[in-house]
Amino acid sequence: MAEPGTAHVFSLRVYYEDTDAGGIVYYANYLKFAERARTELLRAVGADHAGLMADDGVAFTVKNCTIDFQRPARLDDALEVHTRFLEVGGASMSAEQVVQRGEEELVRMTVRLACVGSSGRPARLPVALRDVLKPLQTSH
Amino acid sequence: MAEPGTAHVFSLRVYYEDTDAGGIVYYANYLKFAERARTELLRAVGADHAGLMADDGVAFTVKNCTIDFQRPARLDDALEVHTRFLEVGGASMSAEQVVQRGEEELVRMTVRLACVGSSGRPARLPVALRDVLKPLQTSH
Amino acid sequence: MAEPGTAHVFSLRVYYEDTDAGGIVYYANYLKFAERARTELLRAVGADHAGLMADDGVAFTVKNCTIDFQRPARLDDALEVHTRFLEVGGASMSAEQVVQRGEEELVRMTVRLACVGSSGRPARLPVALRDVLKPLQTSH
Amino acid sequence: MAEPGTAHVFSLRVYYEDTDAGGIVYYANYLKFAERARTELLRAVGADHAGLMADDGVAFTVKNCTIDFQRPARLDDALEVHTRFLEVGGASMSAEQVVQRGEEELVRMTVRLACVGSSGRPARLPVALRDVLKPLQTSH
Repeated sequence: MAEPGTAHVFSLRVYYEDTDAGGIVYYANYLKFAERARTELLRAVGADHAGLMADDGVAFTVKNCTIDFQRPARLDDALEVHTRFLEVGGASMSAEQVVQRGEEELVRMTVRLACVGSSGRPARLPVALRDVLKPLQTSH
Repeated sequence: MAEPGTAHVFSLRVYYEDTDAGGIVYYANYLKFAERARTELLRAVGADHAGLMADDGVAFTVKNCTIDFQRPARLDDALEVHTRFLEVGGASMSAEQVVQRGEEELVRMTVRLACVGSSGRPARLPVALRDVLKPLQTSH
Repeated sequence: MAEPGTAHVFSLRVYYEDTDAGGIVYYANYLKFAERARTELLRAVGADHAGLMADDGVAFTVKNCTIDFQRPARLDDALEVHTRFLEVGGASMSAEQVVQRGEEELVRMTVRLACVGSSGRPARLPVALRDVLKPLQTSH
Repeated sequence: MAEPGTAHVFSLRVYYEDTDAGGIVYYANYLKFAERARTELLRAVGADHAGLMADDGVAFTVKNCTIDFQRPARLDDALEVHTRFLEVGGASMSAEQVVQRGEEELVRMTVRLACVGSSGRPARLPVALRDVLKPLQTSH
């Protein structure tokens, strides 16, 4: 799940709440799927949001993202979000996240996250977290 | 807008985000519409969430609600939420909220709200707010 | 999972998307959790939304619900939705759904669902589905 | 509202539903705000989603977007989405959308939309719509 060079895989189901009157997943909801996947990746390496804030006084905030919507997902679809870290820096990280239905790629996005303190100002990644995430970085 | 015995009316448009693959507004979203309407009613009498918390240390939380879904709303519909206070007590309020499309009633709900302090414990309604809301109470 | 007299249990995690600025799960989102649970219960007995519409020309729509919000859920919480059928009729069903955090009951709701045809008119429950759901009915 | 070279401005309020436990607007929700603004821009030039589908058999789908999150919006904020068309082509359009709080820029995004037929395949923009949108194109 957190092997160097491999992607973290998060599975989800498409429910009515995710779809719109066009019969497909509403475009903003892929950002929800991606955030769930990042949360579970962090949990897999021992970090959850509440703990990061309580112990280290930090949180992650998305600074920018680029999204390509290639094919639509539909009600009842079983999807996977494949997350790879492209870069783990001192105060920020970037990740590539691909939403797939089986082998079929539906949405591809690149996300840059900043580590911020409780005031919202930039902060250093906790060392222990950085040490565990850094090896997951892929040379894409 | 805040006349005794009359309902407060809040207008909104149905966007793609509100609909689902059934081609109609997703059922949970009527609770969003109702909350927007309650927020604007409070604003109309001079109270906003940030001010209530900063000045009085209180917020409102929904304790229970009953919802009848009578007819579906659809994409592009212009809707109105009609809100009437049924009861304004010392630490809670109840309201009836009807979502209409023109004269046609779509959804009717009854909501009971509790006033809570920053700890989440029950708190008294600020007197100034109670004084302005109490006359709006309708004997429905 | 679908034993007579027992509840169907659906597990979920609370993500940022589910919470609001009050630091707790936004009240409308419990209806999303409940709908996910009903969908998975139907899937557990062999029925999915796409199949019901394609094979039988029917869907389920919520006619009314009553919700008691007892305690708030928070970010990162692991929740369960326990679903029990109270009644399975010819063209409608009612269910009780309880959202729990461990043994702690957070939200309790009762939902009445109608079976509708593609036109939105009331329709009979498919016999095969009714036969599998009927024994799950509990005398609450 | 639809003057050549000027931006279309759409106003909105931040409600509880838009925020998350970080106390700010959840990042995916800016895509909802942007979609509302595009819908109202189209309505301002005489085109709504239902009409486009019924009369011309077309809809718009987002192909990709790039988003910069510069500053967070908060509960009760009054926001504006400023939309400018960068390019209006034969079967696609691109727009720049800036979310502002007063003069302060919070989020900036670029969105490319494709015109699709009911099958989801690429389709030509209806001529009447293209004629009214083309002059709004800005050389940014």
